[in-house]
Amino acid sequence: MAVYTDISETELASFLTEYDIGELRSYRGIAEGSENSNYVLHTTGGEFILTLYEKRVERADLPFFLGLMQHLANKGISCPLPVARRDGELIGNIAGRPAAIITFLEGFWVRRPTAAHCREVGKALAGLHLAGADFSLHRHNAMDMAGWRKLWEGACARADEVEPGLAGEIEADFERLKADWPQDLPKGVIHADLFPDNVFFLGDRLSGLIDFYFACNDFLAYDLATCLNAWCFEKDFSFNLTKAKALLAGYQSIRKLDAEEAAALPVLAHGSALRFLMTRLYDWLHVADGAMVQKRDPKEYLRRVRFHRAIGSASEYGLDGS
Amino acid sequence: MAVYTDISETELASFLTEYDIGELRSYRGIAEGSENSNYVLHTTGGEFILTLYEKRVERADLPFFLGLMQHLANKGISCPLPVARRDGELIGNIAGRPAAIITFLEGFWVRRPTAAHCREVGKALAGLHLAGADFSLHRHNAMDMAGWRKLWEGACARADEVEPGLAGEIEADFERLKADWPQDLPKGVIHADLFPDNVFFLGDRLSGLIDFYFACNDFLAYDLATCLNAWCFEKDFSFNLTKAKALLAGYQSIRKLDAEEAAALPVLAHGSALRFLMTRLYDWLHVADGAMVQKRDPKEYLRRVRFHRAIGSASEYGLDGS
Repeated sequence: MAVYTDISETELASFLTEYDIGELRSYRGIAEGSENSNYVLHTTGGEFILTLYEKRVERADLPFFLGLMQHLANKGISCPLPVARRDGELIGNIAGRPAAIITFLEGFWVRRPTAAHCREVGKALAGLHLAGADFSLHRHNAMDMAGWRKLWEGACARADEVEPGLAGEIEADFERLKADWPQDLPKGVIHADLFPDNVFFLGDRLSGLIDFYFACNDFLAYDLATCLNAWCFEKDFSFNLTKAKALLAGYQSIRKLDAEEAAALPVLAHGSALRFLMTRLYDWLHVADGAMVQKRDPKEYLRRVRFHRAIGSASEYGLDGS
Repeated sequence: MAVYTDISETELASFLTEYDIGELRSYRGIAEGSENSNYVLHTTGGEFILTLYEKRVERADLPFFLGLMQHLANKGISCPLPVARRDGELIGNIAGRPAAIITFLEGFWVRRPTAAHCREVGKALAGLHLAGADFSLHRHNAMDMAGWRKLWEGACARADEVEPGLAGEIEADFERLKADWPQDLPKGVIHADLFPDNVFFLGDRLSGLIDFYFACNDFLAYDLATCLNAWCFEKDFSFNLTKAKALLAGYQSIRKLDAEEAAALPVLAHGSALRFLMTRLYDWLHVADGAMVQKRDPKEYLRRVRFHRAIGSASEYGLDGS
């Protein structure tokens, strides 16, 4: 939620000579993106976002992220289109960091999503899954169960500081998820972080998906489970069944879940909640208070973990025909 | 350098019904402004800045700040123009805070100003002083010597933590400035914070002045002295006489300093450096490390204070004819 790297006008002017986007008219750092530095550029050619990739993003992953946006945009998914340099490259360098220019999307993220928004998100997620099917690159999900486990190893000794008994509770979750995690579900490209701040709307119409910097290959239904966590809980942690029904129905109107995916939804949602609990818990315990990374309360995801633990079947999420 | 207050789309939509600026197309928080929350709005009517005034800004001062921008813009000074609501008011309310919409200025602040930039700043500052002469509202400079003294009283006991001996050194500065401070110089509306990040350029052309939230009535030459501090020192604290000559000549090409103003320039520059040292020192000692207010090293201004202390006459700054 900050600009980590300031850039000078001379650095930017030199960087822009590689691009065919006109004369620079203004650039302003925006308070978005928890991992990277972002600027809105105005040029005589229009508006763009300049992203500087900070250390939390692996340089080797950038061709996947940017190639995916290009692939999806070319298939009609409303997402930022990376702007190629004159030499055809999508990635440049500025202020010692890899950087890319992408198109500016109209719309804004909704702070108070309704069921209508959730339905649109479900449809867009399914559309992304279908459009990603023939994307040629592959990226392992670094935040798979082994990834959560690694974060947990750096946090478990102090977990009880967050809540007494938490360490034992989470250990039991890991045991259960390890035993129940599905082995064979339809896989493909997933967004993996489709939270409300990564979906733009204009009114009730979804105008774009952004921030593909966690995208990877994994179970498609896991992505939907993450959306259940991200979109269907209220601020008081109550589960809004109307929103969940809308999300799931929207998804299934474009891509029908098979029986195995439907059956796995509770364990996937449980795992997804644990994944976000792990990153938040780790940051909570390890990130210095003065740092610019925003620390979010891990308990928000502990509440979700506990909710999903008690779910018997996907029909409890409002999934039709499960 | 952050957005302190997030606003929801419903709050914003309701706020915008008071304005005639078209349909909202996007809004994004920008990482600018050390005291307020700022958003770039795109509407079908164009681009605007929405500012939410946070607690460091007195609500009672807003008519002065916004009225001044309106006054200056109407006189041809390139600065943001406050957009009036349908009912004629310049100030509304959103998320429990007073807020205003101002026009978006093209251009960007220069991280590495040249002498050419300094000349333009001098000219623009003088233009602002002339244009402000018939502005009807009045605002006392809250950061006058009594204001610095108040900050000092909250910092002096711990000043030696920053550098041993600092407390005594600053006490002597106060004594000297109290004795030498001019009583009677031309007064008027001053910007009072015309640092590089508050001046936009397009190439070498100055495209606008922003951030009038310290503007007040005080000695005009004091504003110029602040620009000497803000524009003419290098990162290694060396004083760049070429830049200072350009700044002063640019100013004098539009408004000639009188003999008393020229003679007072060293004490005004000394006082201005002490003023910024005081706010930085106070924040350094008092603002919690986790807070969103950016803490800047007070020593940057201690170095300037020491420089000006040794100046005998304004000719040492490169002032012609002094």
